[in-house]
Amino acid sequence: MRKITPIEFIDSSAVRLLDQRMLPADVVYNNYSNIESLSQAITDMVVRGAPAIGITVAYGLALAAFNAKSNDISVVKQAVQDADSYLRKSRPTAVNLFWALDQVHAAVPEGITDAADYCKAIESAVDTLAVLDIETNKAIGYHAMAVVPDDVTFIHHCNTGSLATMEYGTALGIIRIAHEEGKKVNVFVDETRPRLQGSKLTSWELKELGIDHRVIVDGASGHVMSTQNVDMCVVGCDRVAMNGDVANKIGTYNLAIVAKEHGVPFYVAAPTSTIDQGTAKGGDIAVEERAAQEITMIGSERIAPEGIDVFNPAFDITPAKFISGIITEKGIVYPPYEEGLAALFKS
Amino acid sequence: MRKITPIEFIDSSAVRLLDQRMLPADVVYNNYSNIESLSQAITDMVVRGAPAIGITVAYGLALAAFNAKSNDISVVKQAVQDADSYLRKSRPTAVNLFWALDQVHAAVPEGITDAADYCKAIESAVDTLAVLDIETNKAIGYHAMAVVPDDVTFIHHCNTGSLATMEYGTALGIIRIAHEEGKKVNVFVDETRPRLQGSKLTSWELKELGIDHRVIVDGASGHVMSTQNVDMCVVGCDRVAMNGDVANKIGTYNLAIVAKEHGVPFYVAAPTSTIDQGTAKGGDIAVEERAAQEITMIGSERIAPEGIDVFNPAFDITPAKFISGIITEKGIVYPPYEEGLAALFKS
Repeated sequence: MRKITPIEFIDSSAVRLLDQRMLPADVVYNNYSNIESLSQAITDMVVRGAPAIGITVAYGLALAAFNAKSNDISVVKQAVQDADSYLRKSRPTAVNLFWALDQVHAAVPEGITDAADYCKAIESAVDTLAVLDIETNKAIGYHAMAVVPDDVTFIHHCNTGSLATMEYGTALGIIRIAHEEGKKVNVFVDETRPRLQGSKLTSWELKELGIDHRVIVDGASGHVMSTQNVDMCVVGCDRVAMNGDVANKIGTYNLAIVAKEHGVPFYVAAPTSTIDQGTAKGGDIAVEERAAQEITMIGSERIAPEGIDVFNPAFDITPAKFISGIITEKGIVYPPYEEGLAALFKS
Repeated sequence: MRKITPIEFIDSSAVRLLDQRMLPADVVYNNYSNIESLSQAITDMVVRGAPAIGITVAYGLALAAFNAKSNDISVVKQAVQDADSYLRKSRPTAVNLFWALDQVHAAVPEGITDAADYCKAIESAVDTLAVLDIETNKAIGYHAMAVVPDDVTFIHHCNTGSLATMEYGTALGIIRIAHEEGKKVNVFVDETRPRLQGSKLTSWELKELGIDHRVIVDGASGHVMSTQNVDMCVVGCDRVAMNGDVANKIGTYNLAIVAKEHGVPFYVAAPTSTIDQGTAKGGDIAVEERAAQEITMIGSERIAPEGIDVFNPAFDITPAKFISGIITEKGIVYPPYEEGLAALFKS
């Protein structure tokens, strides 16, 4: 597979992002050299996917530190704090954004007095997070093999692959590792309206990986389950509440309901960074609403009359009762989720 | 509302169709002066919607009769028979296509010996069918008022309005009559991938009618039902089996499953012409698969990598157990459908 590098920190002066809005037609990288433009890039979904957003904002802190260009560590620390506050407003739903910022602060040693050392410590903390993300994804994938048959047909929603993370991905990482382990893998790819992360990004990754797949419209999953042999649905997530409710890309909830109706297991791939100890239940999660244009336009093509209203929630909440298991890097958590999820944080 | 005339028979020499592929951007009419081009227009979905397809092929018989340009009635009859066979292959799922052709044959008096009289008799039979279609739609709408509250929020899938029929429409006719009757009407409009009949056609009709509505992606219906007060789903259909299973636009089945999960009533608007006494159950209905391009392209915009595979069924089958009622021009049929549907044909 072609090496994909969705996020890079360049010369201590810019965060370079693969512009995912341009895929699959064009592979374009943009450099963001200040926090405002980086935050806007996240809002505009140049980069998306909960883990990738986390790493991006974390590099944002490193960028802010170096951009302060000061020998006074208090000046640098203030710049980092300001950047932190700014970046937290980029998008509301994925908890990894907040988690990654917290992780960086926690990882920087307390005793640093030199401004340059402080900058390097932040960068190093983010580099560690980035490497950890790949290890986490692989661990999710290997744990999942316990429930993935040797001849397997998946339905997958949105994009959860190397583009949504540092590499491998979460739900798509499961699919990739199943393929690497020699299983016979077939994937039905929800195109995932409105932004089409399935047809644009997931099918691109699966094609690069040489994994058999067919794109379907999101409304076809019921027909697919009733006429084809689907073994399981796998999705990623933006936030897991402590009762097992899951926020993920709009359409996930419909897929989960349809899967339950057909007796098809529905698994959520979730690094523990997406499990939010501060969120008791799905109803507590803020669901971002996005611009009408995502529904009324595709590229330059208008697909709805001028001036009509739309309702465009970017995410939905899937209640725990629809979820067969939550696959983390520490293992698969099964219901009752209150106990299983809490236990992850006790060790 | 601007008068929409999706189908017209012009000067005994052409069937004029509003090109629904061009809406909402452009209002373009095309004339089809032979059976081959008319059949291709149906296949290409210049005209779509089960009732509209029925009227179109019926006018195709009239076109074939006049095109024979013969004083020999046996020559004209043979031309009509050839056209009938050809037109039956245009699309496989909507039973109205076959029903309308049968209706025309049945309506032409037996004793005609003059070729010109025969041509006129066919045209007249189709004109009658076309008028009847509007009356049928209004009757469906008025029967539905028994189950539509005075302040109502619908979810509607695909397009079932004046564009899909001769006027008013089936499910959209219910919405229109609720509005005309002074009810407070609000509609969530499934955009209906892949061909976007919801965002392109239904929102256009609702805007013309001045009915409040918001377009949603098909995957959002569960989120809408769990966060908004949805009173009922209304859809049209392409074929109803005698056990109450319904073939309709892809995505209908998912919507029905999601509605049942939320306790939201799910109604199918079905002129008796779509109820097929020759089909015992949904599994007996041929589901058309259409070109990959419907999923990989929107207009000139490519939205998936070159060369990927898709699975593009145009319809799905909703089992009877998900359907709260089937609303016909003769009244609402409730479960058990075997009895209720059979009774419609006994009177």
